[in-house]
Amino acid sequence: MGMSQSLGVITPQLLQVENPLTLSSGAQLPRYDLIYETYGELNADASNAILVCHALSGDHHVAGEDANGKPGWWDGYIGPGKPVDTDKFFVVCSNNLGGCRGSTGPTSINPETGKVYGPDFPMMTCRDWVNSQNELRKHLGIEQWAALIGGSMGGMQVLQWAIDYPDKLRHALVIAAAPKLSAQNIAFNEVARRAIMTDPEFHGGRYIENDTIPKQGLSLARMLGHLTYLSDDMMGSKFGRELREDKLQYNYEVEFQVESYLRYQGEKFATKQNFDANTYLLMTKALDYFDPAAEFDHDLTKALAQATADFLVVSFTSDWRFSPQRSHEIVKALLDNDANVSYAEVESEHGHDAFLLPNEHYEAVFRAYMQKLINELPENDQNGDKK
Amino acid sequence: MGMSQSLGVITPQLLQVENPLTLSSGAQLPRYDLIYETYGELNADASNAILVCHALSGDHHVAGEDANGKPGWWDGYIGPGKPVDTDKFFVVCSNNLGGCRGSTGPTSINPETGKVYGPDFPMMTCRDWVNSQNELRKHLGIEQWAALIGGSMGGMQVLQWAIDYPDKLRHALVIAAAPKLSAQNIAFNEVARRAIMTDPEFHGGRYIENDTIPKQGLSLARMLGHLTYLSDDMMGSKFGRELREDKLQYNYEVEFQVESYLRYQGEKFATKQNFDANTYLLMTKALDYFDPAAEFDHDLTKALAQATADFLVVSFTSDWRFSPQRSHEIVKALLDNDANVSYAEVESEHGHDAFLLPNEHYEAVFRAYMQKLINELPENDQNGDKK
Repeated sequence: MGMSQSLGVITPQLLQVENPLTLSSGAQLPRYDLIYETYGELNADASNAILVCHALSGDHHVAGEDANGKPGWWDGYIGPGKPVDTDKFFVVCSNNLGGCRGSTGPTSINPETGKVYGPDFPMMTCRDWVNSQNELRKHLGIEQWAALIGGSMGGMQVLQWAIDYPDKLRHALVIAAAPKLSAQNIAFNEVARRAIMTDPEFHGGRYIENDTIPKQGLSLARMLGHLTYLSDDMMGSKFGRELREDKLQYNYEVEFQVESYLRYQGEKFATKQNFDANTYLLMTKALDYFDPAAEFDHDLTKALAQATADFLVVSFTSDWRFSPQRSHEIVKALLDNDANVSYAEVESEHGHDAFLLPNEHYEAVFRAYMQKLINELPENDQNGDKK
Repeated sequence: MGMSQSLGVITPQLLQVENPLTLSSGAQLPRYDLIYETYGELNADASNAILVCHALSGDHHVAGEDANGKPGWWDGYIGPGKPVDTDKFFVVCSNNLGGCRGSTGPTSINPETGKVYGPDFPMMTCRDWVNSQNELRKHLGIEQWAALIGGSMGGMQVLQWAIDYPDKLRHALVIAAAPKLSAQNIAFNEVARRAIMTDPEFHGGRYIENDTIPKQGLSLARMLGHLTYLSDDMMGSKFGRELREDKLQYNYEVEFQVESYLRYQGEKFATKQNFDANTYLLMTKALDYFDPAAEFDHDLTKALAQATADFLVVSFTSDWRFSPQRSHEIVKALLDNDANVSYAEVESEHGHDAFLLPNEHYEAVFRAYMQKLINELPENDQNGDKK
């Protein structure tokens, strides 16, 4: 396999879908753009295509470098010689609808009014995203994905794909996810949303027209998000109770390192990264809504009876946002259906963030599973029978 | 023991301390009031006095009814025939300095300026509170408390008493506490503080002069607090993913019951309960600062070597704010010192809130320990030798 090579600079592409998309809410999106990146080459029979689904604040730039040299958010795991090997696979990643990185979303122009959508952008669900990603699949000439891969909210989209389009994927990799949010998960989202929506600069979502952004609310939401992505142990080993100055200041300036870290993360998200507040609201609602079992008598086993893909499910020991127990629910429901499922519970102190970070066990599990897929590709099939 | 009787309506009392109090920060409080309530009768040799220390949003009204008929925050455990039996003990509880319920705090008039303290009220620590409570002890003519009792931040004050005034207490009951906050604990406090301080109605803490309150920020802080007081399991069994309406609304109104509950709690705290935002800030900072081991080479065993009291330490299985592991740290340090320590880990799904709620095991442990104290009182001592 040799040394890993770089993917180099990746230029995003744009799919313009001129057909309306009917959404779970009943609303219609008259037309939409999907921005996406691809890595590697599609093989002759289009059997080596992989779609990666992103999480809450992610985007289409999952690997390689962007025009500013910024690496993709999963670049550690996707590229030449990496677990998702772009010498073997054609990897696709698009920015979700409702996003703020180039796909149609709240910062886009509403064709019906000629103004920015803002709060009028319709509510999205994982199912809506999957339906829009299915248009991208058709556009790229892919009959069936070799695999769908996603972490966190991305893993939820993978589950939805496996249920809604069972014949359109062979493998489903569901990482650090849950079959639905718990009341506590929803509660954290709600506090984050309240922080944004009660910021006076929010202006009922019309902050762009008011030439401002709800910076404080968005910063708070991000600080809170970070808190739930990190484990207590990890925060302890990273920050402990270390003071920023040598001694206690007895004021409300930053006193402990962890405060400094969180404030910085919150500020960066709202200003330098310029994440759109309406997108943040919408993404957290899509998380809240995700509950594929609901229409199957709240029985996840029944919901996953639709699925025909093989599964890899991965969880991380210190993840308290979507704990290993949540992955167990998925694995049990798959086993109830005699699905072909592999499961790994990876030891990590990095909490929910672990799915993005280097980890020897995680990488080995990921790589081993992907090697199985490589062996199934027609160019590597010793028996010549294409699956 | 018979039926529990009611304590009836309790009238708070005021101690006016005209001596200055030198604080941990180096600042001085020129004079201060402590509001407090008492229950039961002090016995002849003043050996049956108990001080209860309150937590973040608590106050001096721990038992009985106030003028509006509102029961005290620990009324389930304190009263005639209750675990802390007011037929046997003289129970005292004061509102902490910096509070907003009658003791001197940010809403009081600064004698040096004639204006409300607001953000100029000095930062407090558990040690400062203990020093002020020690003035109350002297005022009441109590040489030695039979016991100090506190949950959460109250438990921290009990630890500080045991270290700073070892000969002034015979028993220390430390419930649902920790020997210091973790980085995650501090991080949650910091997000809550940012929510308050970035509310435009905060006005740098001078909201009273501006005839307003930072209602949104305080509501957010309280919502977040509630989230950390409740366990995921408990929120699940209390709210699950129950919808407020029959079906999904696909908007930002309250959709799930848990959202409704949290918004209500936040709103109530900021408006109906009229909790002071500067007090909330100050209390969270006192929590962050609490670290009695710091001045003993960060060695809790060394810190607790000062203590001569007997200890009861109680934790609750689903408490993730101050988990049982945090109580273990206290118990281990006490055992290192061959202290007389009892420990109970109580099964509960109610998270950190469990320390305030009915629980058979908790009540039995609490009652049994207090019975030991009753047996030690001179009026119950069969051998006539006063401890």
